[in-house]
Amino acid sequence: MAYVIGLDYGTDSCRAVLIDMSDASCVASAVHPYARWARGEYCDAANEQFRQHPLDYLEGLEFVVSEVLKAKPEAAADVKGIGIDTTGSTPIAVAADGEVLALKDEFKDNPNAMFILWKDHTALAESDKINELAHSGDYPDFTKYSGGIHSPEWFWAKAAHILSIDEQVADATHSFIEHGDWLPALLAGITDAKAIKRSRCLAGHKGMWHAEWDGFPSDAFLTAVEPKLASLRDRMDQTTYTMDNQAGTLCAAWAEKLGLPEGIAISVGALDAHIGAVGANIKPGMWCKVMGTSTCDMVVSSYEDIGDKIIPGICGQVDGSILNGAIGLEAGQSAFGDVYSWYRSLLLWPIQAMGGDESQYENILVKLGEEAATLPIGADGITALDWHNGRRTPDVNPHVKAAISGIKLGTDAPRLYRALVEATIFGSKAIYDRMAEHGVSVNRIVALGGIAQKSEFVMQCMADVLDCEIVVSASDQTCALGAAMYAAVAAGLCADIDEAGNKLDAGICATYKPNAENKAAYAAAYAQYQALATYVDA
Amino acid sequence: MAYVIGLDYGTDSCRAVLIDMSDASCVASAVHPYARWARGEYCDAANEQFRQHPLDYLEGLEFVVSEVLKAKPEAAADVKGIGIDTTGSTPIAVAADGEVLALKDEFKDNPNAMFILWKDHTALAESDKINELAHSGDYPDFTKYSGGIHSPEWFWAKAAHILSIDEQVADATHSFIEHGDWLPALLAGITDAKAIKRSRCLAGHKGMWHAEWDGFPSDAFLTAVEPKLASLRDRMDQTTYTMDNQAGTLCAAWAEKLGLPEGIAISVGALDAHIGAVGANIKPGMWCKVMGTSTCDMVVSSYEDIGDKIIPGICGQVDGSILNGAIGLEAGQSAFGDVYSWYRSLLLWPIQAMGGDESQYENILVKLGEEAATLPIGADGITALDWHNGRRTPDVNPHVKAAISGIKLGTDAPRLYRALVEATIFGSKAIYDRMAEHGVSVNRIVALGGIAQKSEFVMQCMADVLDCEIVVSASDQTCALGAAMYAAVAAGLCADIDEAGNKLDAGICATYKPNAENKAAYAAAYAQYQALATYVDA
Repeated sequence: MAYVIGLDYGTDSCRAVLIDMSDASCVASAVHPYARWARGEYCDAANEQFRQHPLDYLEGLEFVVSEVLKAKPEAAADVKGIGIDTTGSTPIAVAADGEVLALKDEFKDNPNAMFILWKDHTALAESDKINELAHSGDYPDFTKYSGGIHSPEWFWAKAAHILSIDEQVADATHSFIEHGDWLPALLAGITDAKAIKRSRCLAGHKGMWHAEWDGFPSDAFLTAVEPKLASLRDRMDQTTYTMDNQAGTLCAAWAEKLGLPEGIAISVGALDAHIGAVGANIKPGMWCKVMGTSTCDMVVSSYEDIGDKIIPGICGQVDGSILNGAIGLEAGQSAFGDVYSWYRSLLLWPIQAMGGDESQYENILVKLGEEAATLPIGADGITALDWHNGRRTPDVNPHVKAAISGIKLGTDAPRLYRALVEATIFGSKAIYDRMAEHGVSVNRIVALGGIAQKSEFVMQCMADVLDCEIVVSASDQTCALGAAMYAAVAAGLCADIDEAGNKLDAGICATYKPNAENKAAYAAAYAQYQALATYVDA
Repeated sequence: MAYVIGLDYGTDSCRAVLIDMSDASCVASAVHPYARWARGEYCDAANEQFRQHPLDYLEGLEFVVSEVLKAKPEAAADVKGIGIDTTGSTPIAVAADGEVLALKDEFKDNPNAMFILWKDHTALAESDKINELAHSGDYPDFTKYSGGIHSPEWFWAKAAHILSIDEQVADATHSFIEHGDWLPALLAGITDAKAIKRSRCLAGHKGMWHAEWDGFPSDAFLTAVEPKLASLRDRMDQTTYTMDNQAGTLCAAWAEKLGLPEGIAISVGALDAHIGAVGANIKPGMWCKVMGTSTCDMVVSSYEDIGDKIIPGICGQVDGSILNGAIGLEAGQSAFGDVYSWYRSLLLWPIQAMGGDESQYENILVKLGEEAATLPIGADGITALDWHNGRRTPDVNPHVKAAISGIKLGTDAPRLYRALVEATIFGSKAIYDRMAEHGVSVNRIVALGGIAQKSEFVMQCMADVLDCEIVVSASDQTCALGAAMYAAVAAGLCADIDEAGNKLDAGICATYKPNAENKAAYAAAYAQYQALATYVDA
């Protein structure tokens, strides 16, 4: 008998799955919303400050593990490993003893001592500085493997920001650590900050770590960004680890708290979306699309395929970031389902502003989708862009905005909706084409997320536009499942992630094949999208 | 005691006003909707065929005149003149005896023998042919004074179309005549088609009549357009008349039918919008904007001001078309209020498609206007075009469409509405600027129509953008009033239209002064409009 636990830390809640390795079944799953976060504590949305308290994570940890074990108490003794994924970049200041500052009494209410959630934008000035210096020619271009930019949402911008604005925190800081590195180290009982193993996935995509410069960016560079970063690099281990490694083994204290055996394997942490791709059993040559409010697009490219190419304008390419032994590429659209939600809100304005009964219109997007599906490709000449939240890839630009052209007096709500759906899919094609232009091959697409499972109209449109078969993962817990897969590898229950992926594969629930008849019409509509994009971009 | 009657023939109905010249008061007004037209007879909206039966006009004539006289029966004997305006170009085939074909028994149900309403688009091929030939270099450019194009909505395209598709009508046709020329001639009892006086306003704006080529386009040109037009020009008097002339005097038969004195003056007819400008007491140097679903923009330019300039891309410049002794310029936006109506329909789609109670949202545009008025100029960076129905002026292009740029997730319904309102006003500015670039000066704007009287938000925005004071005419019958003014001149009750305009001036009900503080912000937003327009136009 052998079980593994997968832990998935999302933006609003964490969840666990308990997997029976004997038959690959999911014994139980549990979810826990973060209490402080739900109350809006430590955040200032108007200034895009989003912080999370470590206690939210720890309370969640104890709750979800105990919940899944309740379903089969006798399994606890046979749990062999724990895998963990988290959001990122979500770093926090850590003391020399490995404890994050917010857990120390003097910092327990200081947002600057807490996790700086991925979507926090307070480090805008620092990211500008990083990009300016990286492109100055005075240093190697440390942004080279991250699409040419270091986002304000990423590790070094946030670390620099916190050190520059909070002297008390700066004085107590040994280094910074990602949420996905901290939790495995905590469970392993590591009490030396420098000994914490850092995930290749997190360091490579969010921390400009690369073998080309023997680790993180140079001390000279970091000091130029923010003097208080001086020597911080020296206090971090420059080795990074892929997720098939152990971050450590479960320490006695946490074994007791969680009711699990001491010494079981804890795998190295990783980004949630990447682990979702693993949960969908991604292989080299595949593209995994997480389709929700935004998209996260992950491609795994074999060394032979990618060679030494650098793909410009994406969010990063990291050796071993998704699967060990291949290059993980990340891209994404900053709005996808959010574009549909925007349109929904627009159309519901009269009802909200003039006191109607909104519940009657709950399914408006379904109704619009039904009507839009019957309309001709190209939405009667209407062209839209999907840049309602700026553009993440290709070629990040948070300042660009969406546009709609081809509007006539006869342009009705379903036609505009069709144009918006096509826009979101053309945004995906732009990413796909950027990969293809630079020689990255994709032979299969696997889609995850609410939209993938719910909207046949959107998915068929996607298959047609990308001219590629798309399968939809049947699992609704792909991230937690992917974490469990890595737990199985770290515990030695599977030889590698390929075997673990195949063993725990949740299968697919839908397949969309491209309709060749639609190819020419979509190509014409995409040309219009590109023309409008070029105008707006100029 | 002296009275005059103004008759205004619009698209859906005709109306009359009875004016007491002793005190300039309106004794009575009456309206009559066209019965056959209301039933959709002789029309084929899907193919943009819109025809009107002369009996609709004649039944209306008898009804509205008898109605206004009922209000003061003793005035009938003292009516001294009748003035008439109509839609245009609304031509009809006429026999040699001056009778229009649809009034003859064999043609009474044939739409090709009826009035071809201004918005009928069946003559598209013929207008293309006219423009091609006019720009071929083989003939003078007869479109020169009509903005460089002869629209499918205009006289010669329609005449050519009818002759080419209906042999029976072609055989019976002596020539074609505008609605606004036919009705005065009918009342005057003229029974010789060639003797019918043609209005300078109608012939100049819609029939390519110009003194430069001694009248209508040459027989060679017209024959090249359509062989059946051969020698038709010879059967038309090449002299045209301004509206301060008599088309004739009331004949005995119609005097009896209408209960009016025989021999009273009937003024030469004219286009309704132009006569509306007269009713608003337009003077040289003024711009009159009729603001409804679309706009009709009329500027009267003094000879000294316009000199021999040709203003490209407008709908025509005609000596004496609005006021005798000045050049009347016509332009317009093909959608204005229709842009707002489009947006209203879009937002009401959920309610219509999902069975809500629409009546609750009757005032949605008022509510949107209130919210939009509080938003910053430039609608938070949203830019829209007003080309939902193509572009009429400057530079007619029925193929261009509207666009909206600058959309973000936070773009809500009032912000989009503000952008659409600004777009319609920027469309007006483009016309204004075209006039100004070519040296046409405007020192005052007078606005008419539903939007001018109802929407303070739109009107203040217009004054700010055009940086010009705008007054709103107090009359809600400006067209019929303008016709009455010309009746007074034709009857000799006033020396000229200047005197008649001043005497019957209905005054203004609102004045909008430009707010200098808004100038820079609107200039920046207009630059965005121009950039988007340039992209869409390309």
